[in-house]
Amino acid sequence: MTLSIAHLGPPGTYAEQAAFFYLNWLKNHQGIEAGLQPYPTIAQSLQAVANQKADLAVVPVENSIEGGVSMTVDTLWQLDNLRIQLALVLPITHNLISCATSLKSIQTVYSHPQGLAQCQKWLGEFLPNVNLIPANSTAEALQLLAQDDTIGAIASSRAANLYDLPILATGINDYPENCTRFWVITQGDNPDIPHLFLDNPRRTSLAFSVAANIPGALVQPLQVFAQQGINLSRIESRPTKRSLGEYLFFIDLEADADAPVMQTALTELNNFTEILKIFGSYNILSIPG
Amino acid sequence: MTLSIAHLGPPGTYAEQAAFFYLNWLKNHQGIEAGLQPYPTIAQSLQAVANQKADLAVVPVENSIEGGVSMTVDTLWQLDNLRIQLALVLPITHNLISCATSLKSIQTVYSHPQGLAQCQKWLGEFLPNVNLIPANSTAEALQLLAQDDTIGAIASSRAANLYDLPILATGINDYPENCTRFWVITQGDNPDIPHLFLDNPRRTSLAFSVAANIPGALVQPLQVFAQQGINLSRIESRPTKRSLGEYLFFIDLEADADAPVMQTALTELNNFTEILKIFGSYNILSIPG
Repeated sequence: MTLSIAHLGPPGTYAEQAAFFYLNWLKNHQGIEAGLQPYPTIAQSLQAVANQKADLAVVPVENSIEGGVSMTVDTLWQLDNLRIQLALVLPITHNLISCATSLKSIQTVYSHPQGLAQCQKWLGEFLPNVNLIPANSTAEALQLLAQDDTIGAIASSRAANLYDLPILATGINDYPENCTRFWVITQGDNPDIPHLFLDNPRRTSLAFSVAANIPGALVQPLQVFAQQGINLSRIESRPTKRSLGEYLFFIDLEADADAPVMQTALTELNNFTEILKIFGSYNILSIPG
Repeated sequence: MTLSIAHLGPPGTYAEQAAFFYLNWLKNHQGIEAGLQPYPTIAQSLQAVANQKADLAVVPVENSIEGGVSMTVDTLWQLDNLRIQLALVLPITHNLISCATSLKSIQTVYSHPQGLAQCQKWLGEFLPNVNLIPANSTAEALQLLAQDDTIGAIASSRAANLYDLPILATGINDYPENCTRFWVITQGDNPDIPHLFLDNPRRTSLAFSVAANIPGALVQPLQVFAQQGINLSRIESRPTKRSLGEYLFFIDLEADADAPVMQTALTELNNFTEILKIFGSYNILSIPG
């Protein structure tokens, strides 16, 4: 059996790099073969899992500089029955890729909006007068370089290798501690996917809406976890899309859903939430830089 | 004296529409003349106020469908001494603007990523096979239309009028209750700016970091407000940009900073926060649709 892994394409995106690491990890540690399947958007890669066109999806959740990836959490809330199997943390080193021989000839730089945002100080210092143009992905931006040496793109060194393009400047991200966390997502009940249990501590991710916008509406659910001594490692609010000022909350907790304190907390949480979705408990794997 | 109002340009963006409403409101209600000053990014329009190159900036904070505008809150945290004077709520109606005579001839649609995201269902149904290309603003997208009738752009009807371009489809946003909240920002101590006090209730916006990622680190600050019966109307977490898993929290509260309960809460809040920045109290004005 060969598993299919959906990801944001084309080949050379950071999502593909994380998916490729996971593919090798599955092979080396679990003896499972897998193939990569690029999709034009993050939403489509998650929908492919929901529609059973792919077995797994590797999707970005959060970057240490630019924050949450709205498309991922919004789609996860909308689709039913998806589960998080694993988190992957990828160190990000951005490069300026171009056929130009010096920075002076570059007039336009393309990248995914997150890539442009994560290099804005470097761009302001070394390329203050260029046009910055957003693209659908870092790898898509590379396909525009062609033979035009007035154009540059911001992407990974893996992408430069894949498309056989020269790197003009490396490590151009404004903050050295730049990394992106990905989730490996499956259907809740897919029996072909091995449930991975590693030694390091597991996290649980869930999301909920609250019934009304009253004082303490968010405090009550958070107190439930604080009272059990469970640390919240992340909270993100997202609009319900019904009206301005109504939110969903996405929360990561430093405990396994099977732990007795979490069982107690999750039972109590039902009293303070409107809709509650638990996306599963999982380990975190760091991808070597 | 004529005040200058910085906003994301070029003319025809939703930010310019909100700034234009505010300009007229200043004239009609306060007898103050103002002029608009477009900037290529939201960050630059805020920096113009910080550097005293502009008196005010009108910047988007949050859309009811796509959520928070990271650039705005991140820049507000980084720059010192900026204050929120007023919130403006603008109803958003997206249009497909094109010189094409029918949808069939359109091959490419340009817009700001938020514009593309807010119309994704409509695009999937009526233009399933077109290329969707992000642009720096909705108005910038219009400048690409030229005479090419295979291209469309998503922007406001005001923008279509400004650039004298035809609207091919109107109200194409997926959710009818689509609106964007803007903030009017000034230097904290600018004596030329009238401090506005309207009849409707005021809100207070602030942001803080917490000392350590311990259980309850976020619950404690939120409890301070719940105990005083102050409702939290919004919470957004943003990365500190130091390391993955460290956050700042941006909070909107339904109370004036001068109210006694808020004075009590703000004093106590210092015990549970690392850095605390209060951006001011302000009224909310709704812009007619």
